[in-house]
Amino acid sequence: MVSARVNELAAAAYAGWLREDATLEEMRTGFDGMCPDPAADATLSEGVVGGVRGIWVEVPESAGTTVLHFHAGGYLIGSPTSHRDLAARIARAAGARVFLADYRLAPEHAFPAAYDDGIAAYRGMLADGVDPASLVVAGDSAGGGLALAVLAAARDAGDPLPAAGVLMSPWADLTLAGDSMSGREAVDPLVSRVVLTEMQQGYLQGADPADHRASPLLGNLAGLPPLLVQVGSSEVLEDDAVRIADRVLHAGGEATLQIGYEMVHVFQMFADRLPEAVAAIDRIGAFVRSRVPAAAAV
Amino acid sequence: MVSARVNELAAAAYAGWLREDATLEEMRTGFDGMCPDPAADATLSEGVVGGVRGIWVEVPESAGTTVLHFHAGGYLIGSPTSHRDLAARIARAAGARVFLADYRLAPEHAFPAAYDDGIAAYRGMLADGVDPASLVVAGDSAGGGLALAVLAAARDAGDPLPAAGVLMSPWADLTLAGDSMSGREAVDPLVSRVVLTEMQQGYLQGADPADHRASPLLGNLAGLPPLLVQVGSSEVLEDDAVRIADRVLHAGGEATLQIGYEMVHVFQMFADRLPEAVAAIDRIGAFVRSRVPAAAAV
Repeated sequence: MVSARVNELAAAAYAGWLREDATLEEMRTGFDGMCPDPAADATLSEGVVGGVRGIWVEVPESAGTTVLHFHAGGYLIGSPTSHRDLAARIARAAGARVFLADYRLAPEHAFPAAYDDGIAAYRGMLADGVDPASLVVAGDSAGGGLALAVLAAARDAGDPLPAAGVLMSPWADLTLAGDSMSGREAVDPLVSRVVLTEMQQGYLQGADPADHRASPLLGNLAGLPPLLVQVGSSEVLEDDAVRIADRVLHAGGEATLQIGYEMVHVFQMFADRLPEAVAAIDRIGAFVRSRVPAAAAV
Repeated sequence: MVSARVNELAAAAYAGWLREDATLEEMRTGFDGMCPDPAADATLSEGVVGGVRGIWVEVPESAGTTVLHFHAGGYLIGSPTSHRDLAARIARAAGARVFLADYRLAPEHAFPAAYDDGIAAYRGMLADGVDPASLVVAGDSAGGGLALAVLAAARDAGDPLPAAGVLMSPWADLTLAGDSMSGREAVDPLVSRVVLTEMQQGYLQGADPADHRASPLLGNLAGLPPLLVQVGSSEVLEDDAVRIADRVLHAGGEATLQIGYEMVHVFQMFADRLPEAVAAIDRIGAFVRSRVPAAAAV
């Protein structure tokens, strides 16, 4: 179950726009509007990396580390606007600047547009002179799956790999095969097979859900940088996180799994109201600092 | 779901003795008989530590590290005999000698007999001159809960703490409150609320299931040594592991959670047949070596 406290704040945050009869535009506007303003000392500036537009988020603590972040939204909604507070908090915890990539969304731009933009943004970082040893690729929900796909693509292409990856409630299997799709359905107040199926169809538009570019969990997970994977226990997507960590470990890689008990999908978004979210972001910061030694000093 | 391969080997291993009409003696004999012989180069010798009998398991790779291990069996069954192969494999992976504590079992010896023996064995290790910096406390299933309770007791008593703890599919909440008790019940082929309730009643014999000595997950988890927690995703007890890791992290401690996807209760017991079990034990070895620097050299 999810505690009444978490249920209430999630219900309040998603109320009015995450409903079956909402239009796409209402959902996009609603998601963007759900985000609190970032702290006053955060600086937001428009940028373009590898031809992909986005928002740079910096805070006074931003040092030599760069985080390339792919936002949530099932490939249909979400934007740099919806994620600017989360980005500012990650920036502060990690001593980093964060680039929120405004990758193309479906249904206007079907698969593999988001994937192509993800790779372009990653290569753009390298082309712009960002040291891969100080670079972290991150994402939440669909953006977490996209981050994983980008890491696998970089490995396959022989590109330099970043120092680490950070995945929050990643959606990395668009075939919806995890046991938790049913095992946690009674407790997940936000995400369901119905919702994910609509998003999958809107993004793929007939493409194979098992395509590794859309479902990197089903592909090769060897040879990736160290990953931090966070998820809530009250998520139908819990097993996407569990399987990523399990398969990375079995492939000889390094994955740290942190499951927030009775936490919901991308609970880190509620850091202005939820102590567990603050703690999870602190752990992201500690992980990044441990992988990017230049950023270790606070 | 559990793969047919894992289901078959678990069913074969537990067949004939893990059934509702089995007597306690049949279950004890069956569990002991399930264990394969340890490798020929393992040395088993009887010992007594802190007044608690047990079996020392050593292999040629055993170096300066000592593992105090509490075996599975719901406080009713299990013994050093049932766990000698697992102990030998952990010994080899960790470069350690392992003491399999033959703590008193219920119903002959009700709660808190096992707990008292656990503490006595731990203090006996210290009294016998084992350096706590080279000592690891471990356990599987009920023994994992017992290991956690012993760590909390040592902290409360101001005893020197060991270098690390290793918990395999720990049963640390005898109130059975984890969401996975229902969320994973459809996939767990071995453990159920019925089985755990019988074990809880046989051990507690009327004592409070929420007593922290029986359910250390419900107690204070701050100030413990670094923990490695392993569990299978196909377990009703998954959330005991998830909650331990979550609460230790929130208490400012260090916990590494490794969930074997579609793995069953204490899957490490099947290392003679299951590659995932071998990999999990290898990760236990790597964790222990990282926490006991003297054992780092293989």
